[in-house]
Amino acid sequence: MTGAEFLVDYLVKLGVTDVFGIPGGVVLDFLYELDRRKDDISVHLSFHEQCAGFAASGYAQLSGRLCVAYATKGPGITNLLTPVADAYSDGSPVLIVTAHSEKKLDKNLRFTGEQELDTVDIFKSVTKYAVRIDSPEVFPFEIKKACDIAVEGRKGPVLIDVLSGIFSEKVSDNGMYSNTDMITSSKSADYIIDRLKISRRPVFLIGDGIHQSCSENLMRELAEKADIPVLSSRCAGDIMPASEMYYGYIGSHGIRYANFILSKADLIIALGNRLAFPTDSESFRPIYENAEIIRIEADESEADRHIPNCKHFIENASDTLDELLRHSICYIEPQKWLDVCKRLKNSLFETDINLPTGILSEVFRTIGSDVIIVNDVGNNEFWSSRAYIYAGISNRALYSKCFGALGCSLGKSIGVYYKSRHPVFCVTGDQGLQLNSQELQFIGMNRLPIAILLLNNHSSGMIRSRERQRYGRFVHTTSDSGYGTPDFKKLAAAYGIEYKEYIPGVFEKIDVPILVEVGIDETVDMEPNLPRGNMCQELVPALDKTLFEVLDIL
Amino acid sequence: MTGAEFLVDYLVKLGVTDVFGIPGGVVLDFLYELDRRKDDISVHLSFHEQCAGFAASGYAQLSGRLCVAYATKGPGITNLLTPVADAYSDGSPVLIVTAHSEKKLDKNLRFTGEQELDTVDIFKSVTKYAVRIDSPEVFPFEIKKACDIAVEGRKGPVLIDVLSGIFSEKVSDNGMYSNTDMITSSKSADYIIDRLKISRRPVFLIGDGIHQSCSENLMRELAEKADIPVLSSRCAGDIMPASEMYYGYIGSHGIRYANFILSKADLIIALGNRLAFPTDSESFRPIYENAEIIRIEADESEADRHIPNCKHFIENASDTLDELLRHSICYIEPQKWLDVCKRLKNSLFETDINLPTGILSEVFRTIGSDVIIVNDVGNNEFWSSRAYIYAGISNRALYSKCFGALGCSLGKSIGVYYKSRHPVFCVTGDQGLQLNSQELQFIGMNRLPIAILLLNNHSSGMIRSRERQRYGRFVHTTSDSGYGTPDFKKLAAAYGIEYKEYIPGVFEKIDVPILVEVGIDETVDMEPNLPRGNMCQELVPALDKTLFEVLDIL
Repeated sequence: MTGAEFLVDYLVKLGVTDVFGIPGGVVLDFLYELDRRKDDISVHLSFHEQCAGFAASGYAQLSGRLCVAYATKGPGITNLLTPVADAYSDGSPVLIVTAHSEKKLDKNLRFTGEQELDTVDIFKSVTKYAVRIDSPEVFPFEIKKACDIAVEGRKGPVLIDVLSGIFSEKVSDNGMYSNTDMITSSKSADYIIDRLKISRRPVFLIGDGIHQSCSENLMRELAEKADIPVLSSRCAGDIMPASEMYYGYIGSHGIRYANFILSKADLIIALGNRLAFPTDSESFRPIYENAEIIRIEADESEADRHIPNCKHFIENASDTLDELLRHSICYIEPQKWLDVCKRLKNSLFETDINLPTGILSEVFRTIGSDVIIVNDVGNNEFWSSRAYIYAGISNRALYSKCFGALGCSLGKSIGVYYKSRHPVFCVTGDQGLQLNSQELQFIGMNRLPIAILLLNNHSSGMIRSRERQRYGRFVHTTSDSGYGTPDFKKLAAAYGIEYKEYIPGVFEKIDVPILVEVGIDETVDMEPNLPRGNMCQELVPALDKTLFEVLDIL
Repeated sequence: MTGAEFLVDYLVKLGVTDVFGIPGGVVLDFLYELDRRKDDISVHLSFHEQCAGFAASGYAQLSGRLCVAYATKGPGITNLLTPVADAYSDGSPVLIVTAHSEKKLDKNLRFTGEQELDTVDIFKSVTKYAVRIDSPEVFPFEIKKACDIAVEGRKGPVLIDVLSGIFSEKVSDNGMYSNTDMITSSKSADYIIDRLKISRRPVFLIGDGIHQSCSENLMRELAEKADIPVLSSRCAGDIMPASEMYYGYIGSHGIRYANFILSKADLIIALGNRLAFPTDSESFRPIYENAEIIRIEADESEADRHIPNCKHFIENASDTLDELLRHSICYIEPQKWLDVCKRLKNSLFETDINLPTGILSEVFRTIGSDVIIVNDVGNNEFWSSRAYIYAGISNRALYSKCFGALGCSLGKSIGVYYKSRHPVFCVTGDQGLQLNSQELQFIGMNRLPIAILLLNNHSSGMIRSRERQRYGRFVHTTSDSGYGTPDFKKLAAAYGIEYKEYIPGVFEKIDVPILVEVGIDETVDMEPNLPRGNMCQELVPALDKTLFEVLDIL
């Protein structure tokens, strides 16, 4: 069989159903083989490689399953850097396939040949594995190795840069690749059980690692069985949203009662959460001083991140949870701690619903539970995650987490649709939508059931807030300081996409592409937030002083 | 003075007039300082960092002068990779400014902090110099070093990744940077003069290095004084187009008479041309067998590229030309060789004007001589370079040369406008225009005098040609194989840009943005071209056999 036949057959066997990219000379044999196997695998045309990458990472992020983006050499592959770095940050298993023509890369020359790059060198710091394949002998082995690495342990993108001719040359599948499975262990369980015995106010702090290890149900079961409140990172709000033990997400733009609960905890058990908040800030230092921390982390290298007062275990969260569920777990006077948590939640649930959050909550209550929410980057995602809590829904909701790739949502929505075959609800802003607006062509042409909610504040809102706080005036972030937007109604029309201004009920049925715009005043900031120096429960706008004092000493 | 003050002041002193980018938290102090100095330097808002990079490289490519693009950390800087690689390939001096928040980058961690990347590692293979600056002490020195490296010798992009705080910290300019100027020499002159004495059919083969070394006038003067015909690479057709000694560009899509002349030469003096055609192909091997080659190259590392039958000199083309002009130069019976060249040109000038080339020639004759032509990538650029010859114009014409960055033309047009303050004529295709269509917002909002000629063949034409030749059917490159385009009239309207279908005279005055569309049948291939195995003068469609034979033995 040829290299292309081997690769496509292997992808089909792995269960990959969709591939995204833009054709180019060196990858045509791969594309044609994908097309030949179209009953088993679908290949889709993107309109910027950036969105081919985001489509693949949306698919992978939703499912934890491998997805593929391909690109031709030169600008094709360099256009993929942003979504690859994003997938690396979010632990999304994506295989990037690219190719080159020159067997030998002369690193002395500026360019060995037209569009020939040292792709591996460029991508190695943002992939789990990147390899240049110049001989058919190693091709099958490297394919298997790359695909395994993408999904093992902490997942992430991998890249193969293939000498183009190999796609049409004979390869024989004699290279065995045995992956180095993580040794499963759950040494933490006994330790956690012991520490809980002397704790009065324990919390679980969960993150995307729970999705990554497919432990959503285990997590919920354990929390409910042990009566331990659960907090999450902002982008992990969809792990167990419907559980009464879930108390929202924490952080400098967190849910107010979640931050309060965090401030009162004496034992924080972090599962699949990398504890990324600044350890030396006034806001979070009290947390580390008041509470003992136990951290379960799948990625060994994350142990490098210094966390004070913390005991680390390198384990898969699923193993830890399995083991904990086999034991009886108790801590001191659970009812007292649960009463505190409930009182905080009840007292503060209705604060902080400003305009966009209110509208979004309203919308979220009307979309079906099978609809997947895909968020862009900027104020809109913060409003969205907050609205998700207030709406009390349980939909999957995806974010570009720590990489914050503006403009990712259109591309990701496409990949999410193909993986789920469910309607997609895409929340975006006016700057993010502009960044990759060309991909409206993909959505419009293929009539995908994607509803785009454009929160248009005619500004680069998040940077505008920063400018307001720091400089008191704006450059390039507001309509009168050089920023601008197109006429989105006409833009939608250019792509054959229905356009509406927001009215309640507009999203009742998502079966064709639609762009819905809602105007937000540019002065609406991302609130509440945590000014430098404030303790984590002291979000602004500040609570009524008496209420704050009452709640703070609970 | 602060880091930002030093940097902006230094850029102003270097004569940088324009900076392109999108604001982000870590670069705000730089942006505000640029804004404060707005009488001396202008900072512009782009809508995708990719186009900020292309704007800077268009500016730099047109002028050979340093231009600046900035980006925030994370996705901001990764979005710049494609234009940086393009600028590296084209030798355009661009300074990329980005910043980071974390003083220490932990390479063990997947991400040290939000959006923190090993930017230098990613960019080092596509820049002349890339440096992370973490201390204010070295800041002035590194700025000066980077800016010098960008413009010295073979030009190209450089990158500084600054610890954000340095922009607002005091820096003192005590670091001296003395650049290592190329030792100017022109040892080649005597050798060239000697070899010419025994030559009957010499040609100069010129490339972009003539632009790079600002030697356009010297080149023309020498060719005309010495009666030596000049051929060029395709993208260097604007170096001396009006000279009667210029005989067009060569290559696998070259001008037919230019390839004929090349095939007959016995001495090829390559100046600022890297002789990139495949040395081992049937098409070009006869060239190396029939002619002696002398090559003048500014980039020492290019000596690595093996060229048979060739004598290399590492020199600036301007030095070589200066020296040659000081001597009398002769070769054997110039009139005979010039007669052959003229006869070839006269016999073949009117071949190969197919539909798009004809329309483009017509258009080119009507635009003013001060208008700068900026080309995208794909069939459109090949039609454009051919039309340029037939139109007999002398305008500057820019290309993405060996990197072939699809979608570059809108961004580059913006930079070219700001550098020249002349109208810009942007030639693009339907796939390239889609790739960065968001930048129509920049052009429309700022009412730039940029005319966009969209050659719309409703297909990914160049790849379609390759598919037709190799597979006989299409995937994702034609309207009925999955490719598609938006309604460009409505798209232009969304951005407040005037739209017209092409009619003669439509470009009479370019003073506001306009998008003009001309439909091209998808079956119009990029012709003529050189099939594998044909000698370079045997372009297809083939000439009448008798005519070919007559011309071939001249």
